[in-house]
Amino acid sequence: MVLREPSLGPVFGIKGGAAGGGYSQVIPMEDINLHFTGDFAAIEKANNLLAALIDNNLQNKEHNLNIDPRTIKWKRVMDMNDRSLRQIVIGIGGTGNGIPREDGFNITPASEVMAILCMSKDIDDLKNRLGNIFVGFTFDKKPIFARDLKAQGAMALLLKDAIKPNLVQTLEGNPAILHGGPFANIAQGTNTILATKMGLSLGDYVVTEAGFGADLGAEKFMNIKCGYGKLAPEAIVLVATIRALRHHGGAKKEEYNTPSMERVSKGFQNLAKHIENCKKFGITPVVAINHFPADTTEEIEFVQTQCAALGVKAIVSYGFAKGGEGTQELAQAVCDVIDAGTNHFKPLYDWNLSVEEKIKTIATEIYGADGVEYSSKARTQLKMILNLGYDKLPICMAKTQKSLSDKETAVGRPTGFTINVREFEFAAGAGFIIPILGDMMRMPGLPAVPASEHMDIDNAGKISGLS
Amino acid sequence: MVLREPSLGPVFGIKGGAAGGGYSQVIPMEDINLHFTGDFAAIEKANNLLAALIDNNLQNKEHNLNIDPRTIKWKRVMDMNDRSLRQIVIGIGGTGNGIPREDGFNITPASEVMAILCMSKDIDDLKNRLGNIFVGFTFDKKPIFARDLKAQGAMALLLKDAIKPNLVQTLEGNPAILHGGPFANIAQGTNTILATKMGLSLGDYVVTEAGFGADLGAEKFMNIKCGYGKLAPEAIVLVATIRALRHHGGAKKEEYNTPSMERVSKGFQNLAKHIENCKKFGITPVVAINHFPADTTEEIEFVQTQCAALGVKAIVSYGFAKGGEGTQELAQAVCDVIDAGTNHFKPLYDWNLSVEEKIKTIATEIYGADGVEYSSKARTQLKMILNLGYDKLPICMAKTQKSLSDKETAVGRPTGFTINVREFEFAAGAGFIIPILGDMMRMPGLPAVPASEHMDIDNAGKISGLS
Amino acid sequence: MVLREPSLGPVFGIKGGAAGGGYSQVIPMEDINLHFTGDFAAIEKANNLLAALIDNNLQNKEHNLNIDPRTIKWKRVMDMNDRSLRQIVIGIGGTGNGIPREDGFNITPASEVMAILCMSKDIDDLKNRLGNIFVGFTFDKKPIFARDLKAQGAMALLLKDAIKPNLVQTLEGNPAILHGGPFANIAQGTNTILATKMGLSLGDYVVTEAGFGADLGAEKFMNIKCGYGKLAPEAIVLVATIRALRHHGGAKKEEYNTPSMERVSKGFQNLAKHIENCKKFGITPVVAINHFPADTTEEIEFVQTQCAALGVKAIVSYGFAKGGEGTQELAQAVCDVIDAGTNHFKPLYDWNLSVEEKIKTIATEIYGADGVEYSSKARTQLKMILNLGYDKLPICMAKTQKSLSDKETAVGRPTGFTINVREFEFAAGAGFIIPILGDMMRMPGLPAVPASEHMDIDNAGKISGLS
Amino acid sequence: MVLREPSLGPVFGIKGGAAGGGYSQVIPMEDINLHFTGDFAAIEKANNLLAALIDNNLQNKEHNLNIDPRTIKWKRVMDMNDRSLRQIVIGIGGTGNGIPREDGFNITPASEVMAILCMSKDIDDLKNRLGNIFVGFTFDKKPIFARDLKAQGAMALLLKDAIKPNLVQTLEGNPAILHGGPFANIAQGTNTILATKMGLSLGDYVVTEAGFGADLGAEKFMNIKCGYGKLAPEAIVLVATIRALRHHGGAKKEEYNTPSMERVSKGFQNLAKHIENCKKFGITPVVAINHFPADTTEEIEFVQTQCAALGVKAIVSYGFAKGGEGTQELAQAVCDVIDAGTNHFKPLYDWNLSVEEKIKTIATEIYGADGVEYSSKARTQLKMILNLGYDKLPICMAKTQKSLSDKETAVGRPTGFTINVREFEFAAGAGFIIPILGDMMRMPGLPAVPASEHMDIDNAGKISGLS
Repeated sequence: MVLREPSLGPVFGIKGGAAGGGYSQVIPMEDINLHFTGDFAAIEKANNLLAALIDNNLQNKEHNLNIDPRTIKWKRVMDMNDRSLRQIVIGIGGTGNGIPREDGFNITPASEVMAILCMSKDIDDLKNRLGNIFVGFTFDKKPIFARDLKAQGAMALLLKDAIKPNLVQTLEGNPAILHGGPFANIAQGTNTILATKMGLSLGDYVVTEAGFGADLGAEKFMNIKCGYGKLAPEAIVLVATIRALRHHGGAKKEEYNTPSMERVSKGFQNLAKHIENCKKFGITPVVAINHFPADTTEEIEFVQTQCAALGVKAIVSYGFAKGGEGTQELAQAVCDVIDAGTNHFKPLYDWNLSVEEKIKTIATEIYGADGVEYSSKARTQLKMILNLGYDKLPICMAKTQKSLSDKETAVGRPTGFTINVREFEFAAGAGFIIPILGDMMRMPGLPAVPASEHMDIDNAGKISGLS
Repeated sequence: MVLREPSLGPVFGIKGGAAGGGYSQVIPMEDINLHFTGDFAAIEKANNLLAALIDNNLQNKEHNLNIDPRTIKWKRVMDMNDRSLRQIVIGIGGTGNGIPREDGFNITPASEVMAILCMSKDIDDLKNRLGNIFVGFTFDKKPIFARDLKAQGAMALLLKDAIKPNLVQTLEGNPAILHGGPFANIAQGTNTILATKMGLSLGDYVVTEAGFGADLGAEKFMNIKCGYGKLAPEAIVLVATIRALRHHGGAKKEEYNTPSMERVSKGFQNLAKHIENCKKFGITPVVAINHFPADTTEEIEFVQTQCAALGVKAIVSYGFAKGGEGTQELAQAVCDVIDAGTNHFKPLYDWNLSVEEKIKTIATEIYGADGVEYSSKARTQLKMILNLGYDKLPICMAKTQKSLSDKETAVGRPTGFTINVREFEFAAGAGFIIPILGDMMRMPGLPAVPASEHMDIDNAGKISGLS
Repeated sequence: MVLREPSLGPVFGIKGGAAGGGYSQVIPMEDINLHFTGDFAAIEKANNLLAALIDNNLQNKEHNLNIDPRTIKWKRVMDMNDRSLRQIVIGIGGTGNGIPREDGFNITPASEVMAILCMSKDIDDLKNRLGNIFVGFTFDKKPIFARDLKAQGAMALLLKDAIKPNLVQTLEGNPAILHGGPFANIAQGTNTILATKMGLSLGDYVVTEAGFGADLGAEKFMNIKCGYGKLAPEAIVLVATIRALRHHGGAKKEEYNTPSMERVSKGFQNLAKHIENCKKFGITPVVAINHFPADTTEEIEFVQTQCAALGVKAIVSYGFAKGGEGTQELAQAVCDVIDAGTNHFKPLYDWNLSVEEKIKTIATEIYGADGVEYSSKARTQLKMILNLGYDKLPICMAKTQKSLSDKETAVGRPTGFTINVREFEFAAGAGFIIPILGDMMRMPGLPAVPASEHMDIDNAGKISGLS
Repeated sequence: MVLREPSLGPVFGIKGGAAGGGYSQVIPMEDINLHFTGDFAAIEKANNLLAALIDNNLQNKEHNLNIDPRTIKWKRVMDMNDRSLRQIVIGIGGTGNGIPREDGFNITPASEVMAILCMSKDIDDLKNRLGNIFVGFTFDKKPIFARDLKAQGAMALLLKDAIKPNLVQTLEGNPAILHGGPFANIAQGTNTILATKMGLSLGDYVVTEAGFGADLGAEKFMNIKCGYGKLAPEAIVLVATIRALRHHGGAKKEEYNTPSMERVSKGFQNLAKHIENCKKFGITPVVAINHFPADTTEEIEFVQTQCAALGVKAIVSYGFAKGGEGTQELAQAVCDVIDAGTNHFKPLYDWNLSVEEKIKTIATEIYGADGVEYSSKARTQLKMILNLGYDKLPICMAKTQKSLSDKETAVGRPTGFTINVREFEFAAGAGFIIPILGDMMRMPGLPAVPASEHMDIDNAGKISGLS
């Protein structure tokens, strides 16, 4: 099992920890949820070293690269839910304190350094990608990269341990490799290629995850990670819950635990679209119904029948309540699929297509959109991407995870919509272009009552409030 | 041997690493100089969690403490030489992004959390001190502390591993405990009380360090750390170099390696004052002359003769060139002093004196000043300190390490000067008052050519440029 | 003749003065183009007094209205092309210097105080409108108005002379009243109601202007100013140039002076649409062809023939070259129309319609759009406008003057487009709602070589560089 | 009578208008206290045009002067009490909105343009001085002046009417010229040289004013204005009040109207020092006791007797209560002194002395200080002034008006003190160096209840709340 590491920021917010639950948990939970092996701290440091080098270059008139401070795209990061740092002005206080400019902090998992770590196959590749990070433009409009600041060596040095995968175990003692932690809405959402390959070299079957809905995590896994990592998955486990189907069928938050055949049957259209999408990659998925206490037999059977009609097995998974034993049937079904050898992975699009064609393919094939619209800002940026020669990179959509469309409230299987590309970013080091649909948050905030208020440790080292 | 951990920020700047040199070094050097065991990262995170909680409290109208954003004293920290973060404006960008206010980052070792870690005797003490951190005032002028934000539990949780001392070894395999890393000019400059006590429980003789000149590190060690830790040192090793004596005798930077009896004899007055100061604590020091290649026998003998005239042994130490063997004579002399039992430690001042009396004592007795002047700002702050009831805390002077006075350029043993308290800060959690003499920098900057430019790691993991 | 006063800002920029040209000029030109009678300075002061009162209210805890500084909509103004003031952070520097917040300066003609002055019928009305200015919200989401700060009396006092119309003369000695100067793209674009009424009480025929294209100035004149001022125009002079028709027919800037029947005939569609629009207000316009040296007889005759086909007279005006004599024919034609009494003014829409209906009417009837789209931000603001009870106000579109659509480059008579409302503002005091289409600039910038570089005055008071 | 014009800012604050009171008033009061003839607005515009040109130069890469934005000394001004504008960050919002930098607004009378207007003898001199305004340094440390931005012509053009003196009258119909309005604590505090000279060309006796205490206004009048204007005053009227003498004798604010021989006799030492100072300029002053209702005969006679002992006439002036009639005796005494021809004006110091010597002369001779201390910042700036060649300019001290010393609370005639030069500014255009003693405010704030709240104008134009 190869998974992502959790970010510390949300631990103090609403979300809490991310080490799993019930009998389906990795341990030591407290360490995994806190500093763990220091990977995030190292990524943060590498990211912020580059930022300090940029501002230092602005300040010093020797070796000055003539960077226009208003064009700098590289932001600082902090693994903390800290909304006040989203948009800041730095370099105030006179000639000794740098050059004034606007800046902002993202949360650490949103750092391109995180994405680069996940994409790198070794230290040389890591350094190369770090050196390729796009920083901004000079006053003469020439692009500046991290390598122009000679930053990649020191950044890689800071990542010398972070690049090594971390081995932990489940409650039942099964090995789990945790490595890398990009979010799936704003980044590629999967663990490192190195960890996945390490898993492949050690086990017969390797299970990995792709965050959020299959329209985000799975699409990016197939088109980006498999491309860079030369991976060819042999099966997909598509995780569904009856709760989520009710939601996609129109249930409100307080009704998620209320059985309703009407809602499940309506919401099934969402799952059907995800199944259809998996098949577009040459793979017939196995659906895992993650069991919750309020699920009714009628609802479950309905889903199973509908899946069967689509040629797909849907199996109830009891991992939370029963651990490994509860997922035996599911595991068997997955092995059967793999052993049958009927799945033949193929990516959805060719990287050599134009950026607009690649985006259109994802939008129409995966999201079910009619087309794509670009803001005038996005069009300008698209030209810049073309001029800089980045148009052959794969696409990493930044889209809400709450809908197949780019509109949070459109549940189920929306149709008759266009998606709107508000602006573009690009990760020249990690190697992808990021069309941003709507307002995607890179730095979360804390809730009115942060989870931290209930956390404690006593003199004997006993921890409370962390889960 | 119980020492401090190095800060990562200066590693990329001019200073380079801080793991010692020659045969006098602790290993694994690369790890110690980089993330080490993550203590600094944990301190940074705990510091910044409090900052995020403060800004989150401003943002949320429920549970709002009515804090006046302009009075917030708690700054964020980053272990990076990053001058652009010294003075910033945060919370820009509308109602979703917090309340706009001025803020700034200090370097991590300057965090009060670092000072608190160094002063705490266990987790309960740690939490108590964290809760006592002063945050700022409400609009009604009431003080707000970290405990009002229920921050201390989560902060302590983040420090659960950082509070444990780190065991490393010297090149010769001798154990060394590295723990805590406050600077000695702006903070108390010594490792944690916990590490010192652990050392005392494990060894017959424990050697520890107190950063910068004896007017800073040693004075604070004796008056603050010994007070909180109930420690009574039995010997002082006063480290001197012929180079430094030349400097204090008037040599310019390019003349430091040029032998000069005139300069050494003039500069000796500086050492004499430090010897005198040690005796004020009831301890006759042993002077260690840290040997450099350009030292002449004549210069060394002069120092030894002069020291002898003051009743003090001065022994040449060859630790850099020869390791343990080179410091045998020194070690023996220190043991002799301890075994003789003639030293009887006593602090310089009574904590119950008024703040002005305590400062005056340090200024006149240790620095050799005629008196102390206060800016009008400092006087106002002094009243506030009195009103808040912090006047019985010990004093932690923030002063340049380059002179016994508060004027960098006054080398040797300056006389006929007054020191100027520009402003006050206070560490209500760590437990001391900080009079600030002159412009003390809390966040260094990088040089025109940062050390990071020469750092590298190759595909085999071989590191270069780090020392 | 009743006209607007020029803004000082653009005088130093690209645009230069705005007192007319050739024999068609008002004098004293230098004074009119500089401070004139101080009206703009008074408006600026009244605007900025309110701003100072707002920030003073934030600062003082007595009489504090609990305003959320992030919601303040009232900006400062300066009659200067000064792009650096567009977006600023104020209140930096500690507790004595106010509360930090984001702010910005608009150019003085963009001030709502300018709009209010233009709409007011007397001092009481002026004070009432000034008191109605919307400032922002409290932390409890209650709206705050200028009257809550008791600002209207002092603001009106500052405007005591500015409210009085200014009488100047043309080069030929004809009286001209100049009063008020709002821009026509971002504001209502016509002189004060008071000046227009003064003109009506003094002359038999009163000519006034409505800035930019008839889709902007005329539409707003008819629907807003006529509504508030109870005015019913009896004729419209629709000013056209052959140059502009060439432009709307596809000519580039360097081709504006190149005769081209093809372009004029294509560009005529733009004029035809404006003629059609005038008729929608119940008025058949007279077209004035403002003569330029490069106009050919063939082009002029084409326009006249086409106009005739639409039932409209098109007469060449030689005001620039010949003064009053050159406009005699035009004047006669206008008098004939008025005397015939065939025009019967009616507004385009009923103020009681919903905001969306009013906008849709203007967009489809006047611009020729297919429909209107709203950003999600605009929709939210629309709800707020409804909640505050401002939905029955007339509409003052902020749209580019370069096209009938909201896309600068769409010349001629564009079809098949929708307009996009990016956001809403509303002038609660002046009395209109402002849908903003695209990025409308409220504060211009200076060009690389500002006109000011060539301006001078010698010791004898002789002025150069101002025209 | 030649006087200064009032600033609008304080009119809305605590201070109210500045057109005099009782029977001693200039009219039309409302106009004088509001926009008057627009001089302040013109000065503000000229000042802010230069600021806009500076920021425009930063923005445009053509004609770019390579100015380091952090060194720009030229601030914007606004004639408004607006503390929130004291310290701001401008140029936020991306590449179109200028270069981000710190800036601030001063109140208009504090503008160097105001000082220049007061010092100029004609338009050529005005332009020359405007061109000499120091702006800041390039990144290569070269000084930049307004003339480098070709700003002086347009600035002078904006001042074409402001340079002309304004004629008003007293309530009794006597002519009064009002022109220029610099403050006396932070600037030179007297009306324009042009107005004074116009007065001299029109009347037999010209009375002018020099703001605040004679240690400020009079000293600057004698040493700066007389130097630039080649003026030689023949008499000094030293205005005193019994109230002020009580204050200097230790009375608290609420005791100012309580007769007290003890306080008056103690406070007389302050007046005695001012008399002594006048004599240092070769002029024996006439003391005018400005009469207040609570003055007792005993107090008045005491002052008169004491003055007589110093060879000085002290005459009670009843201008407020009785107008011209009440000042007849005073006027006669002044004429007598002039006609006697015994006064022979001489400046206090030679402009060719070093800056330190000039400052020392003022400090010891006029203030009664023992000496002068310089902060390290001031010393650095002094070197810069020397390097730029401005050390031969006269000195314009920025000092509190509340004490002869630089410490507000030191009433009476303080002795045994040194003054502290915190920093330097210099007005290269106006022609003086400004040593800043303590925190001198350049931009006032409004009180909790601004005077503006009570101001009004009714529909008939009747004004209230302005006095």
